[in-house]
Amino acid sequence: MKYNNAPIGIFDSGLGGLTVFKEVRKILPDEDLIYYLDTARVPYGNKSKETVLRYSTEISKFLISKGVKIVVAACNTSSSLALDDLRKGETIPIFGVIEPGAKKAVEVSSGGNIAVIGTSATIKSRAYSRVIYEEINALKRSGEYKFKSNFKVIEKACPLLVPFVEEGFLNEEITKKVINYYLNPVVDEKPSCLVFGCTHYPILKDLILEAIGRDIQIIDSGIETAKIVKCFLEENDMLKDEAKNGSELFFVSDDLEKFKELGEKFLGRKIENVNIVNQFL
Amino acid sequence: MKYNNAPIGIFDSGLGGLTVFKEVRKILPDEDLIYYLDTARVPYGNKSKETVLRYSTEISKFLISKGVKIVVAACNTSSSLALDDLRKGETIPIFGVIEPGAKKAVEVSSGGNIAVIGTSATIKSRAYSRVIYEEINALKRSGEYKFKSNFKVIEKACPLLVPFVEEGFLNEEITKKVINYYLNPVVDEKPSCLVFGCTHYPILKDLILEAIGRDIQIIDSGIETAKIVKCFLEENDMLKDEAKNGSELFFVSDDLEKFKELGEKFLGRKIENVNIVNQFL
Repeated sequence: MKYNNAPIGIFDSGLGGLTVFKEVRKILPDEDLIYYLDTARVPYGNKSKETVLRYSTEISKFLISKGVKIVVAACNTSSSLALDDLRKGETIPIFGVIEPGAKKAVEVSSGGNIAVIGTSATIKSRAYSRVIYEEINALKRSGEYKFKSNFKVIEKACPLLVPFVEEGFLNEEITKKVINYYLNPVVDEKPSCLVFGCTHYPILKDLILEAIGRDIQIIDSGIETAKIVKCFLEENDMLKDEAKNGSELFFVSDDLEKFKELGEKFLGRKIENVNIVNQFL
Repeated sequence: MKYNNAPIGIFDSGLGGLTVFKEVRKILPDEDLIYYLDTARVPYGNKSKETVLRYSTEISKFLISKGVKIVVAACNTSSSLALDDLRKGETIPIFGVIEPGAKKAVEVSSGGNIAVIGTSATIKSRAYSRVIYEEINALKRSGEYKFKSNFKVIEKACPLLVPFVEEGFLNEEITKKVINYYLNPVVDEKPSCLVFGCTHYPILKDLILEAIGRDIQIIDSGIETAKIVKCFLEENDMLKDEAKNGSELFFVSDDLEKFKELGEKFLGRKIENVNIVNQFL
């Protein structure tokens, strides 16, 4: 069976995943996309592994029931707590946002310290440092890693940044203060790069750069994930056959109008085809 | 059927309801209490009426299935969006936290401006001002209202205060700044009293008093609700028969250990009998 013309399924707890959606749309303009936001249960970042896994499983199965060819967990908390279990027993590929971001960090850091910021759950899971060390060990084994090994991975939880974004505090003095509060100890460690380990953070990119210094390379897991998805579809001959603009279909678990309003502001364009779904809530 | 020795059911989305639980325990030491926290779906304050009503209905029915004699919605968002519907079709009394707080505000304000702070959903519902005006109109009709009527009800949403409390930012410089950000426009209206329209806010009482001025009377809906519950049980001969210390039973929908840790810090004592329940999640 050929899946080429099936849609790509993407999900997140809230609006953050739109940063991944946007990047996928940018580099795969022909693909049909289905995006699910779990706005009735947002946020995931302060919840347990069991709960995040239950929610993520329900949504993956929902997307698969809609005939998607791959699923992208566009949520760092889901990717760090639930991805391995989600992949078990599924026949279609499931992508997370941790591996692409972590691998890019190794690529650009040249042996320097790597900083990662994320929600409490993502940081507590240590998923980024695990993948970073696995990647470096793999490169060492194949003789491709040429740098010193005494670098540090600095993982810092910034739990208030998601509420600041969701409440629309995007350029306030108070937002700068919270960012400085979290990032000042990170700056002291002189990182060579900073991984956005939460899909909400690209929305605060300018303020974060101001706090951490404009010479630090930012790694946006959304951009890296979109590239890996494109590469996978190309290599496996799964790109859409028809070269016509891809369709978009949205599902939210709460308040359709609020999503449209914030989502349109965020994407800078109209959002059509939004449906509310609460079959498993 | 006499319900005297049945427990009292209390619920909230998160830890905030413990401020109500604490006040009920203080003035009704013999009563058995069952407290449900919906930590798997917290917060409610940014969700739609339909979703908050669905969650509140599930939890009320769960508490009723445990044999409680009354239910207290110790959550301002639930009380403002769902209480009327929750009461429909139920045979046991269901209390919210809005009416007690609003009535106390009318009592102490002496015709001055009344300020109310709460989550986005509570403030958007205008539940407090509706009850305040209803109460004043009732007092006017019975000739008991002696003050001028040109006072204002100032309702101010402070959506970031719940995340600040839930993340344990209780006495930081940054918390003061956020409180000032929200309250400075309220101070300008010279209110005679300030209603805590969210069960989380008593935890920030000192910082809030610092921002709004120590001569303003604070109304804690939790304290007022506990008084009304006691009064109702006395008037209806529903107080517990036996004068022995009341038992306590907790249910959470997510992460038992996290609740125990934060809840014990909050109550200043050990919490026993915590169960995890996710039958309707």
